[in-house]
Amino acid sequence: MSELREQAGKVKEAARALAILPTLRKNAILLAMAEALEKRQGEILEANAVDIAAAESKGTSPAMLDRLALNEGRIYSMAEGLRKVAGLPDPVGEVIGGGTAASGLRITKRRVPLGVVGIIYEARPNVTSDAMGLCLKTGNGVILKGGSEAVASNAAIARIMTEAGISRGLPEDVVCFVSDTSRECVNEMMKMNGLIDVLIPRGGSGLIQAVVRGATVPVIETGVGNCHIFVDMSADLQMARKIVVNAKTSRPSVCNAAESLLVHREIAPAFLPDVFAALKEKGVRLYGCPESRKYGEISAATEEDYAKEYLDLAMSVKVVADVREAVRHINRYGTQHSEAIVTRNIENARYFQEMVDAAAVYVNASTRFTDGEEFGLGAEIGISTQKLHARGPMGLTELTTYKYFVEGDGQIR
Amino acid sequence: MSELREQAGKVKEAARALAILPTLRKNAILLAMAEALEKRQGEILEANAVDIAAAESKGTSPAMLDRLALNEGRIYSMAEGLRKVAGLPDPVGEVIGGGTAASGLRITKRRVPLGVVGIIYEARPNVTSDAMGLCLKTGNGVILKGGSEAVASNAAIARIMTEAGISRGLPEDVVCFVSDTSRECVNEMMKMNGLIDVLIPRGGSGLIQAVVRGATVPVIETGVGNCHIFVDMSADLQMARKIVVNAKTSRPSVCNAAESLLVHREIAPAFLPDVFAALKEKGVRLYGCPESRKYGEISAATEEDYAKEYLDLAMSVKVVADVREAVRHINRYGTQHSEAIVTRNIENARYFQEMVDAAAVYVNASTRFTDGEEFGLGAEIGISTQKLHARGPMGLTELTTYKYFVEGDGQIR
Repeated sequence: MSELREQAGKVKEAARALAILPTLRKNAILLAMAEALEKRQGEILEANAVDIAAAESKGTSPAMLDRLALNEGRIYSMAEGLRKVAGLPDPVGEVIGGGTAASGLRITKRRVPLGVVGIIYEARPNVTSDAMGLCLKTGNGVILKGGSEAVASNAAIARIMTEAGISRGLPEDVVCFVSDTSRECVNEMMKMNGLIDVLIPRGGSGLIQAVVRGATVPVIETGVGNCHIFVDMSADLQMARKIVVNAKTSRPSVCNAAESLLVHREIAPAFLPDVFAALKEKGVRLYGCPESRKYGEISAATEEDYAKEYLDLAMSVKVVADVREAVRHINRYGTQHSEAIVTRNIENARYFQEMVDAAAVYVNASTRFTDGEEFGLGAEIGISTQKLHARGPMGLTELTTYKYFVEGDGQIR
Repeated sequence: MSELREQAGKVKEAARALAILPTLRKNAILLAMAEALEKRQGEILEANAVDIAAAESKGTSPAMLDRLALNEGRIYSMAEGLRKVAGLPDPVGEVIGGGTAASGLRITKRRVPLGVVGIIYEARPNVTSDAMGLCLKTGNGVILKGGSEAVASNAAIARIMTEAGISRGLPEDVVCFVSDTSRECVNEMMKMNGLIDVLIPRGGSGLIQAVVRGATVPVIETGVGNCHIFVDMSADLQMARKIVVNAKTSRPSVCNAAESLLVHREIAPAFLPDVFAALKEKGVRLYGCPESRKYGEISAATEEDYAKEYLDLAMSVKVVADVREAVRHINRYGTQHSEAIVTRNIENARYFQEMVDAAAVYVNASTRFTDGEEFGLGAEIGISTQKLHARGPMGLTELTTYKYFVEGDGQIR
């Protein structure tokens, strides 16, 4: 048996004790972890400096360096995140169904932890503290496998949190930080059926697809968002322009940012020149269909552009005949994340919401709202783009499963 | 593109229309299907005779032939099953959460169909009508891939139901019956990401493990049950004997039947001779640990016996020191299906229920109750032994996902 499997076995075993830890104890552990992150920030910043130096020597891009860099403010945010999770209601133990069966059996359907959650992630070191906090609050053991570029920072964060947790009663071995950042190690994690109950990849679409394709352990697919805004014929064009500009430019690197603009043919002449100007002013590169290109100097879109999650100041544009063509286009190229229609027509709004296959379907609002915070979940481990188990923002509840507790007095069947 | 992929694409497209079909329409379709099965039973029996003849010529076992065989009574049961599903509440459209966000967005979390469900199954032709009924009631397209031994029967059932459905407004192409029973075809189905939303294997553990290991499409693992009964020191021994005999012998071929008996060392002398006699009287072969074999003439258990789902009149036996050893044994060898303790001790009951990792954990009752009917779900597409999405008996609700419907009046972020 490999060392990783052996460690995972220990996590699984330790997670059984964590699963029944009272909420008050778990909250105390999270608060101690937050305090330790702040108190021992020197160690974290030192480790982070090692990662940054290595990244710089490899010629890493400034944007990437920024994602990697920690400072006092960012460490404070990580600690605040843990305090916030400590303050959220604990879903573990919640009764979500049941009754007395015809046989007289008393059946209680109760939320319980998933068991062991595996997180495979890239870049941002704050994922280490976020994911650990959410998994521990929900009574799950956690195996963390971060990217090589942040390995020193991640290891320091995990070590400091674990030590602080154990001092407050966290069962030993419930957290496993995998410092081996090799590809083989990821491959092994993906096949650890019986040791890992669910695998959540967080990162770019390359990572996510590799995990979805390669894993035999159940996976929750997250985060890739090729989101569209469809501006219908009857749209309030001023509202439409604001929504498009916001959805594209307010934070282009996140998954709920819009990547593609669909415009009804009838209002294209009135809308496109205006929105092109507004987007160009924000530095957005535009790739359009032949018809859209009549309304501004923009590049030609390829088939690839329509399927692309730019995560950048770039956007594809297409003129469509009606809401039906818009829906067909979205169901073909979208990633089932977040989609929006801007319209005044109630029938088209309903048709769009019913027929578009996505986690969140908006009428007259920016796709940027798809988020655990905005949806009232309090915190978020990721945004699911699959349909099994969880769809859209995943909070604490989505890190649980349930168990039937059944009590009888000798019933046989 | 293969023919199967092309067909699956049509199912996916057609399923969008099915997803918004009103409940009354879906119920009328199910009732018409039930009627057609009865009216056209001659065709079904003819097809079944072809399957039976082929099976006989291959020297198939009598038990297998019995599972394959249809008659008027069994066809009536299939029709009754459809009528029952028609009478169940429709989960599609149910509002399961939401509210008005701080931004003023109105968020409604509503159940929607999964999309396209793939069922890979063996033997019993009634799975064809059961699975079709449950998937259609929940607005899902369905791709059915039955075993080669029942291909003529399954094809006849699917054809008759589809024709009757279409005559009452079922969108064409929402059902795809795969008559190619080759292994390659199963392999292809397992990789149809984007075309199949979930794959549910129903059959023996060989089939289920092959699908879990080979699929890149999300899978719900069902049905393998290595269920245990632990008889604690304080148990009512008469109750314990009844529960053990019932759980083992009332229907040994099903997944909620008990496969293993654990007995507290202190009561082994008082309990084992008695329960061995009762089990032997029912024809049960016993495989025990050295200590258990002091109490009766039974075979020696191997490590393999403890991991085995016999699905037959056979049972493994082990004497344990206490509830902790029982729980450790179950968590090591069990399949997270159904587990039971017989005890009068409230602490041990609680410890067992909390610590055993399974879909249903019983106190003083037979494991045989883990069933959609008994749990009040009305019908069942299978029993999940995984933790994602659904655990234990899966009814109509488990064949849905949800979607966030979000309405604004120009919100940007």
